[in-house]
Amino acid sequence: MYNFKFQNPTKIIFGKGMIAELAKEIPQGKRILITFGGGSVRNNGVYDQVKQALANHHTEEFWGIEPNPKYETLMQAVVLGRQKNIDFILAVGGGSVVDGSKFIAAAIPYEGEPWDLISKRIRVQTTVPLATVITLPATGSEMNCGAVISRKSTMEKLVLSTPLNYPKFSILDPEVTFSLPKGQIAAGLIDTFIHTMEQYLTFPVDAKLMDRWAEGILQTVIETAPRAMDIRPDYDTMANYMLTATMALNDFIAMGVPQDWATHMIGHEITAFAEITHGYTLAIVFPQLLRVMKDEKRDKILQYGARVWGITVGSVDERIEATIERTEGFFRSLGVKTKLSEYGVGEEIISKIVARFEMRGTVLGENKTVTPEKVEKILRMAL
Amino acid sequence: MYNFKFQNPTKIIFGKGMIAELAKEIPQGKRILITFGGGSVRNNGVYDQVKQALANHHTEEFWGIEPNPKYETLMQAVVLGRQKNIDFILAVGGGSVVDGSKFIAAAIPYEGEPWDLISKRIRVQTTVPLATVITLPATGSEMNCGAVISRKSTMEKLVLSTPLNYPKFSILDPEVTFSLPKGQIAAGLIDTFIHTMEQYLTFPVDAKLMDRWAEGILQTVIETAPRAMDIRPDYDTMANYMLTATMALNDFIAMGVPQDWATHMIGHEITAFAEITHGYTLAIVFPQLLRVMKDEKRDKILQYGARVWGITVGSVDERIEATIERTEGFFRSLGVKTKLSEYGVGEEIISKIVARFEMRGTVLGENKTVTPEKVEKILRMAL
Repeated sequence: MYNFKFQNPTKIIFGKGMIAELAKEIPQGKRILITFGGGSVRNNGVYDQVKQALANHHTEEFWGIEPNPKYETLMQAVVLGRQKNIDFILAVGGGSVVDGSKFIAAAIPYEGEPWDLISKRIRVQTTVPLATVITLPATGSEMNCGAVISRKSTMEKLVLSTPLNYPKFSILDPEVTFSLPKGQIAAGLIDTFIHTMEQYLTFPVDAKLMDRWAEGILQTVIETAPRAMDIRPDYDTMANYMLTATMALNDFIAMGVPQDWATHMIGHEITAFAEITHGYTLAIVFPQLLRVMKDEKRDKILQYGARVWGITVGSVDERIEATIERTEGFFRSLGVKTKLSEYGVGEEIISKIVARFEMRGTVLGENKTVTPEKVEKILRMAL
Repeated sequence: MYNFKFQNPTKIIFGKGMIAELAKEIPQGKRILITFGGGSVRNNGVYDQVKQALANHHTEEFWGIEPNPKYETLMQAVVLGRQKNIDFILAVGGGSVVDGSKFIAAAIPYEGEPWDLISKRIRVQTTVPLATVITLPATGSEMNCGAVISRKSTMEKLVLSTPLNYPKFSILDPEVTFSLPKGQIAAGLIDTFIHTMEQYLTFPVDAKLMDRWAEGILQTVIETAPRAMDIRPDYDTMANYMLTATMALNDFIAMGVPQDWATHMIGHEITAFAEITHGYTLAIVFPQLLRVMKDEKRDKILQYGARVWGITVGSVDERIEATIERTEGFFRSLGVKTKLSEYGVGEEIISKIVARFEMRGTVLGENKTVTPEKVEKILRMAL
């Protein structure tokens, strides 16, 4: 097991009716900027619950943070926040709204060009305090300090990370997920699944508890998925889905273990060039990445196959292939396509992505062995 | 799944050589009271590492916090802390030193009689900030806000709990466990196991992830135990043991689930009257508690038996009994006795404990159905 440091100060407020807790959790006198996505919260009752809870607080609203939140959009919120002397941000939405709001929180007090905080990795010195009401379980952004931000003008999708951006609190009410489109739930389940894999499916370091906890998330996602995809899912199913999404990316399963993240980095580029939903890009990349990297990942693929899918019979190669097929089959059982061509994307995207990794000198994976050549191989197999 | 709130701000600093991080973690200028137990840290190098790391800090020392830390002893540290204008406490030791230090941290600034904070459950308003260097993995006290304090004069053993007492940070270096007596490791493994059970073995609320994570701790303890009890345990074994001990009682497996704690409450009374090591009292009580409460706990006993021990064959009663036998057998495999008589304790203790529960009107367990009569039955079966 590796040495590690762990700290996660975010308070989780979980359950039915918990949005009403907002009134207690945000100090009186704060000038709150509430950030929203496209408007679904107006239909599912979340907007009304939030406004009612904050009836005695000063609030401003910013609408229109899009999926894969864009620098260009977020800078409008930064201008508004500065104009209105905002000193608290409440993100109400899915991972994109939360991620976008983390950028806004860091950008408002920053005197230079805010994009430099991301592109030049300038250390964030101060942020506006942030909290969230999550409506789409997927990214775990409600309990971590990372954010993925896109810039339209340069077709970039990059990460902003600062411990100052842990939400002060996040409210998770599973009831708000009942009205989600099934395609978004499928993407959220896959995102949760692959977040776990990025921290689990590497090489063994005898981290027994972390392995068990990662497998526990995978098992819960697999067990929960069919009922979460049902037309009328029950409360506990959505509660389990919501909790796993948060727990998959809050460092609880990252203690003392190597991490991969190649699937995410490749997936981000697919989204940057082809605007495919993040969760779907992971379903495209991951199975082929396992095939290409199967020698380095052999021990953990076999462990995963045995413990999660019960695959214990056959040669090593047979068990590995069966495990990968079960994994891809699970994604497809959620109605998610796992080939680029199924999204109308052809091989022209491959050279663009590979060229970008080559230009940046990017080598990915837990062993830094996923070279641009390997990325090309993975993407060709995913066509 | 129940509604819940979760927040755990403690920073964990884990691994080889991490005690040196003390110098960075405690701000310069602090007047530190370092609290110790009986002196084993002088022999295993921990004392020297701590003093070296804090060479440029102002430190005072208090020695002699005993197992099941006593109010009478701790009040001496309170007097010292006040005299020396202490504004930071560093607990160096096992759970007793940490628990005792939590009491000291709350008592130093309290103007009334500090025992009232426990016995009258007066809300703690302020504490001296506290951090820990843990030497005996067992209680989880390094990452929670609870403390169990005993009072000699009244033979009481009671709980102090305040969110102000989460350690600012805790340093966990598995190397410091190499010199532990095997009896203490056995007690620590059992303590970890039963902490998990108190949050897991109740009744189902469809909390799939929490169940998996609890089972993951149990599996890791069982898998780790034989090598941890070895004369020369390896680093990763002790790292897994240390991590499970912390994760078993930091609320990570308590989200949205019912909790029991009857085994602990009965065990505390055994310790109060007979001074048996805490971990051993749990091994005495738990198997008999399962037998007496098996109807209410049926579903979870069967789930635990199947998932952790692979017990899937036989009638319900047979599987339950087999599961309890495997559990008790596991404790005994660690060289721990599971009957009161094996510790030289006779039935005279039973009426004392039952009388105390009757006097206090205590009814225990997740359903509040463990009446004094049930406690008597459990203890008779444990004779």
